[in-house]
Amino acid sequence: MGEPYLLTPGPLTTSLEVKQAMLKDWGSWDGDFRAMTASLCEKLLAIAGDDGGDFDCVPMQGSGTFAVEAMLGSFLGPDSKTLVLVNGAYGKRIVETLNYLGRNHAIIDKGDYMPPRGDEVAAALADDPAITHVVLVHCETSSGILNPVGEIAEVVDAAGRKLLIDSMSAFGALPLKVGEIKYEAMVSSANKCIEGVPGFGFIIARKSELEAAKGNCHSLSLDAHAQWVNFKKTGQWRFTPPTHTVAAFMKALEMHEEEGGAPARLARYERNRDVMVAGMRELGFETLLKDRWLSPIIVTFFNPDHPNFSFPRFYDLMKARGFIIYPGKLTVVDSFRVGCIGRLDEQVMRNVVTAARESLEEMNVDSASPPESALKERARLAA
Amino acid sequence: MGEPYLLTPGPLTTSLEVKQAMLKDWGSWDGDFRAMTASLCEKLLAIAGDDGGDFDCVPMQGSGTFAVEAMLGSFLGPDSKTLVLVNGAYGKRIVETLNYLGRNHAIIDKGDYMPPRGDEVAAALADDPAITHVVLVHCETSSGILNPVGEIAEVVDAAGRKLLIDSMSAFGALPLKVGEIKYEAMVSSANKCIEGVPGFGFIIARKSELEAAKGNCHSLSLDAHAQWVNFKKTGQWRFTPPTHTVAAFMKALEMHEEEGGAPARLARYERNRDVMVAGMRELGFETLLKDRWLSPIIVTFFNPDHPNFSFPRFYDLMKARGFIIYPGKLTVVDSFRVGCIGRLDEQVMRNVVTAARESLEEMNVDSASPPESALKERARLAA
Ligand SMILES: Cc1ncc(COP(=O)(O)O)c(C=O)c1O
Ligand SMILES: Cc1ncc(COP(=O)(O)O)c(C=O)c1O
Repeated sequence: MGEPYLLTPGPLTTSLEVKQAMLKDWGSWDGDFRAMTASLCEKLLAIAGDDGGDFDCVPMQGSGTFAVEAMLGSFLGPDSKTLVLVNGAYGKRIVETLNYLGRNHAIIDKGDYMPPRGDEVAAALADDPAITHVVLVHCETSSGILNPVGEIAEVVDAAGRKLLIDSMSAFGALPLKVGEIKYEAMVSSANKCIEGVPGFGFIIARKSELEAAKGNCHSLSLDAHAQWVNFKKTGQWRFTPPTHTVAAFMKALEMHEEEGGAPARLARYERNRDVMVAGMRELGFETLLKDRWLSPIIVTFFNPDHPNFSFPRFYDLMKARGFIIYPGKLTVVDSFRVGCIGRLDEQVMRNVVTAARESLEEMNVDSASPPESALKERARLAA
Repeated sequence: MGEPYLLTPGPLTTSLEVKQAMLKDWGSWDGDFRAMTASLCEKLLAIAGDDGGDFDCVPMQGSGTFAVEAMLGSFLGPDSKTLVLVNGAYGKRIVETLNYLGRNHAIIDKGDYMPPRGDEVAAALADDPAITHVVLVHCETSSGILNPVGEIAEVVDAAGRKLLIDSMSAFGALPLKVGEIKYEAMVSSANKCIEGVPGFGFIIARKSELEAAKGNCHSLSLDAHAQWVNFKKTGQWRFTPPTHTVAAFMKALEMHEEEGGAPARLARYERNRDVMVAGMRELGFETLLKDRWLSPIIVTFFNPDHPNFSFPRFYDLMKARGFIIYPGKLTVVDSFRVGCIGRLDEQVMRNVVTAARESLEEMNVDSASPPESALKERARLAA
């Protein structure tokens, strides 16, 4: 058996071609590498639909969290007040970051996975004129919920505030065109829907915001303004870039384009999700979310309510069959997650379902239905 | 012709085996990857000579600068005052970082490349009892000078202060054993003397310092205490690790061990330097530094004082012959640098010298001697 498929929301399974692009060493100061970085930024701006030239792309070393912190630290000035829309771990992490930064903020916390809605955001903004910014997580990867970014962007714009988006696990598949959804900046990373390997993130931001960010940032390494200025001046990353990861990402961008860009990628991921969810439901598994909120990125399932079921064992049995799945992140009920992104297609997803069936059999679990409490929890969402 | 050799101080030329280790995708949550991280830390601690178990290793995503900032931000508390020993770009960057952090500091600035000496550090510490910490750059890669770390460590210890070291370009080759040189923490990165690919750095720090660092850090992403606690609790990186880079680094560590560890690596680098410097001197090039201060990491040469010499053209001619060299970083005289680290041996270095000779010929430069001003500058160092 070859390597296991990663049914995880990044790092994920990448193509062999992407990995093979790492078989060369690049001088980071050399012209060839500078040209690569410039092309990387251009291609990302094209995916974001920036034809007006109002936006720019700033790659940032480190994991996605580093890029989110760079966005927050650079764009939220000392007099800002930020409304954070929280419905999961990544929203909570934004709050934690603002606490580190000592930036004033308010929170709408919807719990583990309920979506923030336009009307409540509009009300919060009307109530508190001090709020200057709103931060939204596009796909909350901790539950897999696809938050209503269009709806939120509209009310934020109508109230004259600025929107920052953590689109880590969504950008490159789910639509987030600057001409269609109004935002000042968004963040994603190399190892999500573009299907590269981990090592850097990137910020796509309005140039006027990048300009205005001068002097805001709390960190030398994470200063998006300084990084941007240096790219413009020298074509280079300020500090050593993850050259091999960048080369892999260029290959990934090429394959993204060849597949048909974000719409084609979205279609494949949706098909992955639909095939996998249908198969799992046939085995008796239940999804945390109703179809309307199910993202094509990652899906949360309730653990079966069966005395023989144990997640660690299920994990190992799935791994032995070539699939790495992901533990859940809910606080109220036990769950696990299956990712739909990466170099996977519906045939792989059918094999995932087969592996799940076999694993249940091997554990002597004859029903995968969740406990009553889980279904009650879900009913709360429907209400 | 194959790919060019990178005669740069990281990213550098790595072995094919190291790059091939990136041809697999790893789940960052998976047990196999956690085991890899644990082994990585163990091996680095062994290189640092920690047999007492007093130290721990904290890998940190991002470039080396990120790890330096993590060390400074985490270990320098609000009441600290730090003496920074500056003799080049990386020392200056430490000062810049402390300015971002708003941490109190004093500076001994020796200019572009003069070494800080024990007696002046002792005097500065005696003069200012408020100073709690000293920061030193081990090898100042901007000039290639090998700073006298043993001498500095002794006076810092004698004065009862704490030493933090940026050993980015030195660790893994130059000796920095915790039993021989007293320091609280040091930083290096994947793509230097261990010969991995870029994507993360690591801090090796006294456990008592890691413990005491709680709550100090200005940044969520760069919080070395929080990262350490999470490793201890879960065996995982707090945020997505650069999995492929880590796998490559494991291979690089294995090859480091096979070669005979840091002493053998140092011997190879010294031989690289000696062969290359002798050959370049034969062509008439002059080194910035006297032999005593020449590191086996990277060597600065003065640009020839010849009307036909142009560095950009020299760079291109060397590149066409398969060698990427590095521009200088001195403010007073024009210079360039040639690295000695990476998967290179003395045969490669001989070819470098041949390429330099041919490049001079092609430019019609019949003498590589530097201008008078450069030699005067160097005489200053000898004084
Ligand atoms: C929505 C979202 N935000 C932030 C992150 C953090 O990214 P990283 O783990 O690369 O730091 C993730 C990671 O999955 C994510 O899905
Ligand atoms: C001594 C020293 N410190 C810091 C750095 C910065 O490392 P990075 O470029 O990976 O951020 C370097 C890089 O060469 C270095 O040599």
